[in-house]
Amino acid sequence: MRIVITGGFGFLGRQVTSTLLGTRTYRGAPIDRLVLADRFVPPGSPEAADPLVEIVRGDLIDRLDEVFAEPVDVLIHLAAAVSAECEADFDLGMSANLDTTRALLEAARAQSAAGGPTPRLVFSSSVAVYGADPALPLPPVVSESTLPTPRSSYGIQKLVCEQLVADYTRRGFVDGRVARLMTVSVRPGKPNAAASGFLSGIIREPLAGLPAVCPVDPALRVALASPRRTVEAILRIAEVERGTGKGRLHGGLPVNLPALTVSVAEMLATLRRVAGDAVADLVAIAPDPDVEAIVGSWPSVFDNTRAAALGLEPNPSFESVVRDYIGDHPDAVVADTSLAAGRPNPGP
Amino acid sequence: MRIVITGGFGFLGRQVTSTLLGTRTYRGAPIDRLVLADRFVPPGSPEAADPLVEIVRGDLIDRLDEVFAEPVDVLIHLAAAVSAECEADFDLGMSANLDTTRALLEAARAQSAAGGPTPRLVFSSSVAVYGADPALPLPPVVSESTLPTPRSSYGIQKLVCEQLVADYTRRGFVDGRVARLMTVSVRPGKPNAAASGFLSGIIREPLAGLPAVCPVDPALRVALASPRRTVEAILRIAEVERGTGKGRLHGGLPVNLPALTVSVAEMLATLRRVAGDAVADLVAIAPDPDVEAIVGSWPSVFDNTRAAALGLEPNPSFESVVRDYIGDHPDAVVADTSLAAGRPNPGP
Repeated sequence: MRIVITGGFGFLGRQVTSTLLGTRTYRGAPIDRLVLADRFVPPGSPEAADPLVEIVRGDLIDRLDEVFAEPVDVLIHLAAAVSAECEADFDLGMSANLDTTRALLEAARAQSAAGGPTPRLVFSSSVAVYGADPALPLPPVVSESTLPTPRSSYGIQKLVCEQLVADYTRRGFVDGRVARLMTVSVRPGKPNAAASGFLSGIIREPLAGLPAVCPVDPALRVALASPRRTVEAILRIAEVERGTGKGRLHGGLPVNLPALTVSVAEMLATLRRVAGDAVADLVAIAPDPDVEAIVGSWPSVFDNTRAAALGLEPNPSFESVVRDYIGDHPDAVVADTSLAAGRPNPGP
Repeated sequence: MRIVITGGFGFLGRQVTSTLLGTRTYRGAPIDRLVLADRFVPPGSPEAADPLVEIVRGDLIDRLDEVFAEPVDVLIHLAAAVSAECEADFDLGMSANLDTTRALLEAARAQSAAGGPTPRLVFSSSVAVYGADPALPLPPVVSESTLPTPRSSYGIQKLVCEQLVADYTRRGFVDGRVARLMTVSVRPGKPNAAASGFLSGIIREPLAGLPAVCPVDPALRVALASPRRTVEAILRIAEVERGTGKGRLHGGLPVNLPALTVSVAEMLATLRRVAGDAVADLVAIAPDPDVEAIVGSWPSVFDNTRAAALGLEPNPSFESVVRDYIGDHPDAVVADTSLAAGRPNPGP
């Protein structure tokens, strides 16, 4: 069993890798090789020391010979240029997202055409496929049967790749599955330039004792999934069998990952409840019309039925999301959350 | 005003050309040049003799320098590999449909980026973008807000190009419009290999005194548009202004061309009424499960509202479609349709 993760050293790639290196199995079979493909490999990455791990470094489109040097059984394609990059540099997005995914599909097709295994391919798409066309406002509740009308080049490129994955699958070239990721919150690490970045920053930065800016009206509602739920869903979609009935993947539609709908005001109130006034007061509200326009164009309420059929549920509450973050990243939290976390306050 | 028609010597290309060479204007401005691009140019084509016409012969993707040698104001992109070709030869479809359209969009973008006019581009898509996913049956009535889930590589390629046209338009690289063509009936000329070919053949062949086979249960309902209505719609979509309100193109959605819903039985009854029993009896019913599966997967009932806002209406009846065909192609009709056509029977 040789599994490839593209974007293997990205935030989600490392979480998926960590989970697979923990179980060391895929659908009950031992993983013989875990190939992590990425443009950048952080020095001293602990994954690199694992005997199962093989690293393919460089632009994916130039490294497909290495990725497919041995038969690929499963390919989890997370590598992508992000939304803001694709909007700023159209050619970069077309190359990094569309051309690279197509080349990956072609390499997978060549493998199966040559008598090798038909690779199972999980394509990470995005909620960014949705947007409101002037002639077609988004419905109040979005599902996989809602027509996507992307309002960004990134969303278009993701949607186009979804279609190619569907056709390569229908023709038997690959066994493709599409996971549409929600905004992931709370992301650890440093702030990034994504329009959605504040949806992690307004929690992560105050917990680290740092100020944060909320660039939208707190009444805005958003759809979120925690890193844990996102990684769980990617792996479930990679492992599930096709068919009808509970626990099987029915039809060729993408799967919108389960979304927790929450207002920014509720997020901030949760922070206040969990970490106290001093921490919550580190967040300044300073609406930025550009950010409000982008984030406000995304759907916030999803029908999670298709994901639920695979046993995937949204986070039960934003408080559980914050508690997971605190538990997973104790070194990034300086705020005293001991009371709220249910542990006895150690006192002065 | 320099207008380019790709697939200019195809069936629809010639009709569009003929209309434009008749009016010699586009939105009231004189046409200075009509560029007909096609792989094949039939010898002795009358269009070639018109002083407005310039011919670009060869594979479009190799001839874009010629197409864009002078600024292009309007580009009507009809060239494509057809459904059956794309299913038989995947790479051909990806090249002829996806790669060629993308190259065309890039050439148009280069023109506007260099300070030239932003080309208006009409992309001819197809009802083949629709299909029934196992997890999502088609609704009883299909509109532009229905999620397309194509069940053919041709449909996928058309849908992908629709998305690229939408993004190139949103970014201001082109002024793109998408026309989704219905099955065109009655097509003149020789039978072709398309699964939908019989929807012309069962009328055209008997009118020419030839036998024809109907490969589906006559109860099957289909959505049709006549050649005249199809060409009228392509040109309307090329000429219409964007905006809201009657007669304007609102939002970025494609336009499904207006569809006449009719059962095959009604088509055959119309033939009998117009041309008599002897002609209608030339049609043999011999269902072919392969053809029934393909044609039966297409939607047959459309909400024509979006087309109607542009002043486009479906054919009023299939009888009018047959009468148009007879009027337009008198040399292809040997049956005596004089009585039914409302002219006095000249008698023996």
